[in-house]
Amino acid sequence: MITEKIFKPRVIADPAKAFENIRKMAVKAMNSSVIFRPHFKTHQSRFFGEMFRQAGVTKITVSSVAMAKYFADDGWDDITVAFPFNPSEYSEMTELQERCKLTITIPCSRSAEILRNICIKPVTVMIKIDAGYNRSGIRWDDHSALKKTYEILDSHDQITAGGLLVHAGDTYHATGRKEITDIYNLTLERLLNCRSIIGRNDLILSAGDTPSMSVLDSFNGINEIRPGNFVFYDLMQYWLGSCDTDSIAMIIACPVVDKRPESGTIVIHGGAVHLSKESLTRDGHAVFGMAVYIVPGGWKYPGRDVYVTSLSQEHGIISDPENVFGDIDIGEPVGIIPVHSCLTADINGSYLLTDGRTADHMQRRCIDQLRR
Amino acid sequence: MITEKIFKPRVIADPAKAFENIRKMAVKAMNSSVIFRPHFKTHQSRFFGEMFRQAGVTKITVSSVAMAKYFADDGWDDITVAFPFNPSEYSEMTELQERCKLTITIPCSRSAEILRNICIKPVTVMIKIDAGYNRSGIRWDDHSALKKTYEILDSHDQITAGGLLVHAGDTYHATGRKEITDIYNLTLERLLNCRSIIGRNDLILSAGDTPSMSVLDSFNGINEIRPGNFVFYDLMQYWLGSCDTDSIAMIIACPVVDKRPESGTIVIHGGAVHLSKESLTRDGHAVFGMAVYIVPGGWKYPGRDVYVTSLSQEHGIISDPENVFGDIDIGEPVGIIPVHSCLTADINGSYLLTDGRTADHMQRRCIDQLRR
Repeated sequence: MITEKIFKPRVIADPAKAFENIRKMAVKAMNSSVIFRPHFKTHQSRFFGEMFRQAGVTKITVSSVAMAKYFADDGWDDITVAFPFNPSEYSEMTELQERCKLTITIPCSRSAEILRNICIKPVTVMIKIDAGYNRSGIRWDDHSALKKTYEILDSHDQITAGGLLVHAGDTYHATGRKEITDIYNLTLERLLNCRSIIGRNDLILSAGDTPSMSVLDSFNGINEIRPGNFVFYDLMQYWLGSCDTDSIAMIIACPVVDKRPESGTIVIHGGAVHLSKESLTRDGHAVFGMAVYIVPGGWKYPGRDVYVTSLSQEHGIISDPENVFGDIDIGEPVGIIPVHSCLTADINGSYLLTDGRTADHMQRRCIDQLRR
Repeated sequence: MITEKIFKPRVIADPAKAFENIRKMAVKAMNSSVIFRPHFKTHQSRFFGEMFRQAGVTKITVSSVAMAKYFADDGWDDITVAFPFNPSEYSEMTELQERCKLTITIPCSRSAEILRNICIKPVTVMIKIDAGYNRSGIRWDDHSALKKTYEILDSHDQITAGGLLVHAGDTYHATGRKEITDIYNLTLERLLNCRSIIGRNDLILSAGDTPSMSVLDSFNGINEIRPGNFVFYDLMQYWLGSCDTDSIAMIIACPVVDKRPESGTIVIHGGAVHLSKESLTRDGHAVFGMAVYIVPGGWKYPGRDVYVTSLSQEHGIISDPENVFGDIDIGEPVGIIPVHSCLTADINGSYLLTDGRTADHMQRRCIDQLRR
């Protein structure tokens, strides 16, 4: 029984569900003949990395140089850092290049200039395109910035422009499958246009968001996909229509510490430092997670939607006016499906698996030994 | 120059400002003749703990048993866990009682019952009162629950009821000093009433929130104060009126990685996994932090309010349409005053000090060695 190990907030992952999510995405990528370069920022774990290896994955995406190093140390040798190049990390990058093929991301002409000024080792570069999300990268319609950036990169004989990289993060605000598909199609059209402006059809087109990659059946036109969140999914993805509840492969178990039937609430040890303050809105109210029963071998939907509606540093408040979790005594755990699994995994820094094993997380907290 | 050490997001704390915040609060507590039992959940650091020692503090508050252990290992021997008692941690607590006086918090009669059933060592207990915040504890007007809880505790000869503990967290939603003072006065009135219902005037009354403790000049009627956040303060406290900007003793420095003057934005390496997703609202828009210049020996307000307006996992977006930070090149850091310093400190797990030293944080991430 995993409950025997839960005295404090603890992330629990179901390796069978995670593997099934990986397998499905790998098959879909293969059927579309696209490179499957999954984003490891969600799990940040060598244990889950190994599952990807078993599914045939050899190329990966990370969101920081530190993360690239964590996985290079585990034998991964083809890594894209899908986060804008930070010149102050350049010497760290060149060290990493001794043992893996590192691809970096350039979001603007100034970034390209700096790279050109300091580059001393061969490196492949993806040009970051903003296809409408408006977060980072060269705007799809700013042709002069695009050409200028490409020319700067192309003028250095150690720099190879490898492709165009996009993150259509606006799918996270979509209202359903139709809108997600529309965003994907528009993104693709804009990427193709950017490539033809540069005039090099060998540049690969790389797209990344989990909603698109989950909802679409095939990825015609794209050359590479980089989804990450799908390994665990979460409440946000479920509400978006990217997955069903059975595909959610991670929860956080939180001991009950106060029961307040007169307020219709349960207080758990599980606050902002365990779940993160990522929230969704339902009926005008903030939702920080959805409660499930902890059962032998995993967790179970209680048949009703019961939400975490407030978080402070260590406290979580579950609104349960119908007393769905009334049988859980103080000291016993409730499971919480997080709003955003990447953040919840990051903040906790290790996994208890449903089969009783544990798995690593790069951000392993040194306090962990106290938590077990 | 601290900028030489900033290649990645890094929490920077100013020890002189922190010490001044501690000194002021210690003097205020002394002038009011109340026990000063500061909450260590904000800094979670033995380094900053030592500053409190220098200011004469001998009693502390923590928010978890793990945190109690971290400070007991550093010689603190009078610790209150101001978080509801979790029976599954009881054996860990009794271990701790070997080397420190541990005071625990009981929020309801069921919690008291469980403690009575398993208690094998003398322990002092604070009864948690909900004086209107509606998070946890016995409602101030539920006299029967209060009496029942007290009687259960009193019936066990190893359990000593030490006092009533409140967290008036509703001050965090106050609109100014007047409202904060009103909440404090109402809280005190309700606590006094609870004590007279139990009929034991020797029970101490313990209150905790930083806004009240910062705004009020004296604490008549209360016996103990437990503020925490005031050691660093943050944007939330500044907006509440608890402090001025000069008292804010902690920022997070984040390298610029993309500049987008056409969108009026700057992209920093500093996302939800560095700042936390705690937000405030200004003019209907979410604010995740306020930008400052990094200067020799610390940071400096740029003369204009410039905010972080969006966060994803590793990216932060600063809205800077007037180009206040236009001189900062890619690779150079911008400072961010966090919305909530407790969460930002917790998530990063170590401090760079403005004098070039570093300070510990209990949640030290093992990846830290890669971050330096």
